[in-house]
Amino acid sequence: MNVSYVNPFIQSTIVTFKNMMSTDVTPGKVALKEGNALTYYISGIIGLSGDAQGAIAVSFPKLAALKVVSAMLGTQIKVVGDEVTDGIGELANIIAGNAKKDLAQFNLKISLPKVVIGSNHYLAQPGKTPVLTVPFTCTFGDFMMEVSLKAV
Amino acid sequence: MNVSYVNPFIQSTIVTFKNMMSTDVTPGKVALKEGNALTYYISGIIGLSGDAQGAIAVSFPKLAALKVVSAMLGTQIKVVGDEVTDGIGELANIIAGNAKKDLAQFNLKISLPKVVIGSNHYLAQPGKTPVLTVPFTCTFGDFMMEVSLKAV
Repeated sequence: MNVSYVNPFIQSTIVTFKNMMSTDVTPGKVALKEGNALTYYISGIIGLSGDAQGAIAVSFPKLAALKVVSAMLGTQIKVVGDEVTDGIGELANIIAGNAKKDLAQFNLKISLPKVVIGSNHYLAQPGKTPVLTVPFTCTFGDFMMEVSLKAV
Repeated sequence: MNVSYVNPFIQSTIVTFKNMMSTDVTPGKVALKEGNALTYYISGIIGLSGDAQGAIAVSFPKLAALKVVSAMLGTQIKVVGDEVTDGIGELANIIAGNAKKDLAQFNLKISLPKVVIGSNHYLAQPGKTPVLTVPFTCTFGDFMMEVSLKAV
């Protein structure tokens, strides 16, 4: 996987948080994911296909997810329910949707989102395709994105 | 969502278990998923895109996953590690890959699989797209498939 493929997803995340939540997010160092040590409360997953195959996930601790969705909706959400699953799924959808424009060579199409909820779940990537992780910080808390993409 | 869209995934599951594990699986009643009450230990998720958008997941209790992957590999796997995440991801991949041939009108392409691991995680489908669930029984234990697909 070409490391440059992750940049459109990073830029899209920055722009999406700015446009939807008027919030600056700061990306940390892109790293190759090794092992499955990272655990989360909620993850939004989008499949990517076309002339490349991949997937992205955005994963949040519970409190950060509540704050993110509260900011998206402009109202305070205190418990994890449909608003939060819809919000995190929509966020993953928008991030992937914006990013694919900058990967036009792959003619990417995106799947419907799936949202995983469960304390201390982790995401594994079967097979040999490398996964790149990007940590983000913002006023809502830290969160993580992971991206895998390979030409087919 | 047209309920008939789920049939290729059911047939593919039956054929995949028969071919790869020489095992008969029996599908139960297809139902519209309501709420998020179903929880699992491990789920393989594949995104679908093309002229329709969707996702499928196959979800297993821990013991069933170990038995399934042991049968796939022809060797007894006793702990959840790379063999199990690779196996469940590959299983989801094969099920989706075979099923899309019978949904040729949608020109479906499949994403890379993601595998979620965590006791009592659950899968939510954001937005209004209905999700159909199919319970399966086999000698390895019970497992569940869920399918969502909408024309775009």
